[in-house]
Amino acid sequence: MEREKTVAGRRFDYGSWLFRKGCFLSGLPMAMGLVGVAAIADPAFGDDANRPPNLIIIFTDDMGYGDLGSYGHPTINSQHLDRMAVEGQKWTSFYATASVCTPSRAALLTGRLPVRNGMSSDRRRVLFPDSKGGLPRDEITIATALKEAGYATACVGKWHLGHLEEFLPTNHGFDSYFGIPYSNDMDNVSGLQHFEANYPEPKVDSFNVPLMRNTEIIERPADQTTITRRYTDEVIERIKEYQDRPFFIYYAQTFPHVPLFAHEEFEGGSLAGLYGDVIEEIDWSVGQIRKTLEDLGLSENTLVVFTSDNGPWLPFREHGGLAGPLRDGKGTTWEGGFRVPAIFWWPGKIEPGVIREIGCTMDLFNTALALAGVDLPRDRTIDGHDLSPTLFGTGEHPRDEMFYYRGTQLYAVRKGPWKAHFVTGAPREEHDPPKLFHLGHDVPERFNRAEDYPEVVEKLRSLAEEHKATVTPVESQLEIR
Amino acid sequence: MEREKTVAGRRFDYGSWLFRKGCFLSGLPMAMGLVGVAAIADPAFGDDANRPPNLIIIFTDDMGYGDLGSYGHPTINSQHLDRMAVEGQKWTSFYATASVCTPSRAALLTGRLPVRNGMSSDRRRVLFPDSKGGLPRDEITIATALKEAGYATACVGKWHLGHLEEFLPTNHGFDSYFGIPYSNDMDNVSGLQHFEANYPEPKVDSFNVPLMRNTEIIERPADQTTITRRYTDEVIERIKEYQDRPFFIYYAQTFPHVPLFAHEEFEGGSLAGLYGDVIEEIDWSVGQIRKTLEDLGLSENTLVVFTSDNGPWLPFREHGGLAGPLRDGKGTTWEGGFRVPAIFWWPGKIEPGVIREIGCTMDLFNTALALAGVDLPRDRTIDGHDLSPTLFGTGEHPRDEMFYYRGTQLYAVRKGPWKAHFVTGAPREEHDPPKLFHLGHDVPERFNRAEDYPEVVEKLRSLAEEHKATVTPVESQLEIR
Repeated sequence: MEREKTVAGRRFDYGSWLFRKGCFLSGLPMAMGLVGVAAIADPAFGDDANRPPNLIIIFTDDMGYGDLGSYGHPTINSQHLDRMAVEGQKWTSFYATASVCTPSRAALLTGRLPVRNGMSSDRRRVLFPDSKGGLPRDEITIATALKEAGYATACVGKWHLGHLEEFLPTNHGFDSYFGIPYSNDMDNVSGLQHFEANYPEPKVDSFNVPLMRNTEIIERPADQTTITRRYTDEVIERIKEYQDRPFFIYYAQTFPHVPLFAHEEFEGGSLAGLYGDVIEEIDWSVGQIRKTLEDLGLSENTLVVFTSDNGPWLPFREHGGLAGPLRDGKGTTWEGGFRVPAIFWWPGKIEPGVIREIGCTMDLFNTALALAGVDLPRDRTIDGHDLSPTLFGTGEHPRDEMFYYRGTQLYAVRKGPWKAHFVTGAPREEHDPPKLFHLGHDVPERFNRAEDYPEVVEKLRSLAEEHKATVTPVESQLEIR
Repeated sequence: MEREKTVAGRRFDYGSWLFRKGCFLSGLPMAMGLVGVAAIADPAFGDDANRPPNLIIIFTDDMGYGDLGSYGHPTINSQHLDRMAVEGQKWTSFYATASVCTPSRAALLTGRLPVRNGMSSDRRRVLFPDSKGGLPRDEITIATALKEAGYATACVGKWHLGHLEEFLPTNHGFDSYFGIPYSNDMDNVSGLQHFEANYPEPKVDSFNVPLMRNTEIIERPADQTTITRRYTDEVIERIKEYQDRPFFIYYAQTFPHVPLFAHEEFEGGSLAGLYGDVIEEIDWSVGQIRKTLEDLGLSENTLVVFTSDNGPWLPFREHGGLAGPLRDGKGTTWEGGFRVPAIFWWPGKIEPGVIREIGCTMDLFNTALALAGVDLPRDRTIDGHDLSPTLFGTGEHPRDEMFYYRGTQLYAVRKGPWKAHFVTGAPREEHDPPKLFHLGHDVPERFNRAEDYPEVVEKLRSLAEEHKATVTPVESQLEIR
């Protein structure tokens, strides 16, 4: 009872829920645009036990592994997230796919390594305001796939996958977009160097970043002191608008990327300085979203995922976060660069607990499609795994590996507890034999065990080579300007 | 309605609970020994709403700030403690009083800085098997005070406050003792150097440490592979024995101090190696104690406190724990040496939450006496504070300062979020001006702000001088042999 449709020139399968809903006459294909209309028009839709779940992904920028109370931060009060971590699942070996913004975001939304779709580069590691490239139009995002399956879709916050119109969220499956399209420290017009403009007292006018509604700039410079509040309002409005149909909201926070700004109600409110104020405002924002879901009776049909795009930006001193016990931070292939907080919350559905297995932001693509009953694209390599068995306690955990790229180069590989660094940097340094760490016994990557475990080294070396053989070089979108 | 009695040659006040109990005729003093008898003899004792609460202090050895899941450890499964941290209070700025064993233990039990009672030294930092000294007989421990107020008292585990008979727990207020009287790595008979004997595969026979029942050695070498299990059984037996009267149990774990041993049921069970196995067995042990309290209907009349004697012993590689985001570990006056996990659990009584205010193991003395209704000794300096207002949400938090000693010397001072290091080591290095860190904004003590905040430096310098003026040099018990 499944059929195939074309999405952005690619083929993938529908899930069965729309058919179970009776939105289609058996065997009769419909134009994709009508699916959503049919869903909205169905008065029974909101009560349907077969209705696929809503999905909200909250994706922070540069929040480190150690920046929440539930992940060991001593002074930041992240009460809402900590509560969700207890009620849901707290993952402790969950990874961003890259340790800088643009490739990390591309991977989350497409389930693919950035090296496969041009969203990585060894020269320019992210997109800049002068970039002419972006996420290729033929990439399938979570939004593309879920929209075609009848979901309402909204993107709120930081995009950073191309700010020219063709690359914007509304051309990648999102019904709407509201946010700052790239990093909040770009368009620095202060006349100061990067660090000085951002630290210790950034000014809104120093960063002439645009705020966009769909494809239009509506404010410039964006008032960053109120941006978390406005993002929150936007998410809540979309939830209310979409409450009678399945929806996907991708809420990509601008913060705690520098420059840091908190609303006046939060500024000075934490024990951890401006950085803490910003995290506490994000925590408040998540709490508001939770409250909205509960007030509308949606919490038991909504998966909320909270994670970060990479580790803390340590050179920014007190304006950078903490990697907790992990080594180093953003921009590196040490654990502090890649491993991030990850909280999955869905009352009554998710098995509460701490998950110590490996997970990765690319897995959210597979998980989202599985929950929506949408088959994966078959014409391309998908690097994610469906995490449903672990989330719902229904089967074997699907992932035991992690590949750590810097730009287009594979620097390190993890298999089970073992991690081999073939290259570290900057400055770039090659290691032969690779540095080998047991991440279970040696969380901070202090003790190189390569000499003691040559057979593990060989296994990881083979794994790296096998993986590299699956990658075909493509043009980098990040170098186009 | 309070009166004074003499305890170990010192004076302090009774609390009012025994009077409320009607154990005394108004105004008629009784011999101390009879108080307990009167309490035991009272058939209504178990149901008395005025009965003071039981107290169990679980004190681990060398467990670091980052060694529990609730404090950010990614791979150790500390499910019982993590649950208690959520149900009770998780303190994030709680300190041991010293960063090595003996002085830390002396401080917890007496509420006094080790420099005041001879339990610190600049030559021998702890007691050794050849030591002839110990905690002076005229010191008042929590056990001394509570025993005289009618509590049953038991010490289980590591003592390390003098192993000659006069200094043993049974001569410091405890009705019984079962445990290894000093560190489990002492009496090294392996012929190997310290590190090699302890790492990576310690053997029971390498450490000829005694296991004692009261004042007798009952096993030597103690079989350390079963010691956590036997400690647990002992605590449970004492709870069962004491269930009809108020009790205080001081359960001082031998582990995770090296050498590490886990019961065969736990060995290899964690993702974090032998160190993780040991912590998970301790967590199991705490879970068993909790279950016993619940099964006996005692949980709502028992305060359970879990904390550690100092930070992780980092030179022992994977056999040392983690300080999480904190700097350095055991033996130092950096935060990683002094700040430890601290969980307070008392269902229905403690306000659940995360406490970010400063607390210290010495405060357990004052808190214990307050809960038992016993006034503090008035003839000596007590350095602790009663934490009841914070535990029960009834008033202002009492502590805003912390003094960091190495041996008899004051190395650092904390006031609010600011910490000044006048000396660091080893190697010993003096700092003038002191190194100044803001522990709220800069958790890992990375950014010295002394030049930016000279007024804070002066304030902390004055505080240190005022404090030092309260200390009178005494003979060190640690140097006697």
